Amino acid sequence: MKAPRGNALIGQSGGPTCVINQSLVGIVEAAKASKNITRVFGALHGIKGILEGKLIDVGKESKETLEGVARTPCAALRSVRKKPTREECQQALALFKKHDIRYFFYIGGNDSAETTHIFNELAVAENYDVHVFHVPKTIDNDLRVNDHCPGYGSAARFVAQAMMGDNLDNRSLPGIKIDIVMGRNAGWLTAASVLARVHPDDGPHLVYVPEKVFSLERFVADVERVYKQHGRCLVAASEGIHDAAGKTLVDSKEKDSHGNAQLSGSGALGDFLAAHLKQKLGDKLRVRADTFGYLQRSFPGVISPSDAKEARQAGRTAVKLAQKHRHGSVALIRTPGEKYAIRFEHTELKNVAKDTRAMEASFLKGDNDIDPSFLEYVRPLAGELPTPVRLSDFPLG
Amino acid sequence: MKAPRGNALIGQSGGPTCVINQSLVGIVEAAKASKNITRVFGALHGIKGILEGKLIDVGKESKETLEGVARTPCAALRSVRKKPTREECQQALALFKKHDIRYFFYIGGNDSAETTHIFNELAVAENYDVHVFHVPKTIDNDLRVNDHCPGYGSAARFVAQAMMGDNLDNRSLPGIKIDIVMGRNAGWLTAASVLARVHPDDGPHLVYVPEKVFSLERFVADVERVYKQHGRCLVAASEGIHDAAGKTLVDSKEKDSHGNAQLSGSGALGDFLAAHLKQKLGDKLRVRADTFGYLQRSFPGVISPSDAKEARQAGRTAVKLAQKHRHGSVALIRTPGEKYAIRFEHTELKNVAKDTRAMEASFLKGDNDIDPSFLEYVRPLAGELPTPVRLSDFPLG
Repeated sequence: MKAPRGNALIGQSGGPTCVINQSLVGIVEAAKASKNITRVFGALHGIKGILEGKLIDVGKESKETLEGVARTPCAALRSVRKKPTREECQQALALFKKHDIRYFFYIGGNDSAETTHIFNELAVAENYDVHVFHVPKTIDNDLRVNDHCPGYGSAARFVAQAMMGDNLDNRSLPGIKIDIVMGRNAGWLTAASVLARVHPDDGPHLVYVPEKVFSLERFVADVERVYKQHGRCLVAASEGIHDAAGKTLVDSKEKDSHGNAQLSGSGALGDFLAAHLKQKLGDKLRVRADTFGYLQRSFPGVISPSDAKEARQAGRTAVKLAQKHRHGSVALIRTPGEKYAIRFEHTELKNVAKDTRAMEASFLKGDNDIDPSFLEYVRPLAGELPTPVRLSDFPLG
Repeated sequence: MKAPRGNALIGQSGGPTCVINQSLVGIVEAAKASKNITRVFGALHGIKGILEGKLIDVGKESKETLEGVARTPCAALRSVRKKPTREECQQALALFKKHDIRYFFYIGGNDSAETTHIFNELAVAENYDVHVFHVPKTIDNDLRVNDHCPGYGSAARFVAQAMMGDNLDNRSLPGIKIDIVMGRNAGWLTAASVLARVHPDDGPHLVYVPEKVFSLERFVADVERVYKQHGRCLVAASEGIHDAAGKTLVDSKEKDSHGNAQLSGSGALGDFLAAHLKQKLGDKLRVRADTFGYLQRSFPGVISPSDAKEARQAGRTAVKLAQKHRHGSVALIRTPGEKYAIRFEHTELKNVAKDTRAMEASFLKGDNDIDPSFLEYVRPLAGELPTPVRLSDFPLG
């Protein structure tokens, strides 16, 4: 296949991550170095900016600015949650033609891959030669095909450090503490909380993920048992935990155009669980809940080095692959062996679009814990963590 | 005054901080070096451990363990929220006599200073020669006499970074975002959120602290105005904001023995404000709320270097002052001049006990903002922060 010549356009979509701009800068670098790409544009707020004609010239940015942007969390091009209609895709295509855009890179999760897929189908049908690539990004880590997704490692690092601190807090002032972690369909990020365990009695003592049916009755019994054993109990729960019918515990009426109900940006689930425990186990108990919230995907200064590096490389690889393939996504595949390493592969858009990837059953332990094998998986992604040190509690003797 | 000879006892009390163990280790170091102090004990869970006879030998810890503990957030001796009765103080005194404890160091905030004060009064009345010192610690920064309190700088740093990330998140996916920051009586920590402002349109756009009466009506109008101007609005609000009668917006029935109602460990205030905005400004608006929660006082890896250093020095200074004074607290006083510097001074326990210190009126700007002069105050305390870099948004030309 002959690679077309023309301009490139980049968009960012969906929830931000701490390294999403590494991918942006990786694309800009590689696009500027490509003999097929003339100019490099950015769309403000993803597909929304394309529809409104809000493009900027990112190819003009200095190397220094780009390096600064790469280190800065959240979409530098700004983001959007929007599934375009067929008419909107046609409108977008008109803009592509107008600006001679022959390469399109959309950095996002499964919903963004779907948007890319829909747009690509139209471009093919209309016989317009544009190479369309999705670049993976999601703290949820729930893209199919991929071993893990850029953005996940840094979020996992944040959750691990947050839980480590909260475990120390809970040990200082004992009680029952519930921490709600992002993750609608998959428990990857919540599972990363087990990185906080250093001493045998460290929390999280209970971990609930959407891969398992959540039962309030079992939850109360679990907490009671742990509290009896340790005099305290630290819980990590995904925002997406649900009953056997798939219903989440707290309802939200708000939905985006991909059909996802709002789960984040509210303390409702944590407060509900805390109130339920007090009701069942007694008003005298010290029960608290925190929702880690948007800090998980935006906190500057808590970034996994491997995540930052891989996100940059994913962007560069997308440009490289786009010279050989008309469309696709970049998949991160872990190579077998003792030492952690990954390779980047081409995959079809439909392989990562729409549907998400749940945690493997082997990573789960019963209804309320994570298997130790998961630690081997997640450690290289989150990077080296602080080591909490305890007093020895020497008796007076 | 002749300094007594005997053993020293250390306790930690109240909410943890990220540097409270620096003070603990500072005391241990200085106590071990003192010719008047024979052995150094620690009480588990502060006054509670004293009453239960749960003491450990911290003087036996290796230098390496102590350095590790100093770097670890949250009370290594574990903590407590408890105001002892007169009978309990007598019980405590009996334990002091049994273990020949002649120096007592209690690391905590205003409530802990009150506990120290009550205990000291009894010791004086009972004519038992023990030197009783409070060592300041609080992320709330609300101890009187002090320019600032150990623990505040690191918490301010966390809040600044969290708000910086959330501002980037809010710029990526615009909407109204409310962030609830710790602080019952004083807005010091919430005010630190203005460190997140780098570009002219950066949030927090509105800052509400307990020093000002909060009006829901004005709040709605403020948010509406900012949203019209920026297309988004980022709010920082203290958990302690209240109406003219001093009533907080969300009620909690739970109180500690110092009479403080539970405000933290719940997303209720943020959710209440978000729901109110939706009700008043329209259901279609994207309104979200996060409560930074216990992460503010426990997050490992986000520690202000000056805060860590000063907390250590506060502990060492307490031991030094305890050789000269029968009782007191260590006060951090900022020395005048261009370059940031502090000195440590002796102050009476009653000067820091019980009552808290609100922000100076000159640091507040209207009802919903912080004066720029506050930045000069807080910058050296929080330390150097990450610098977010934006794209230039060059037009296509």
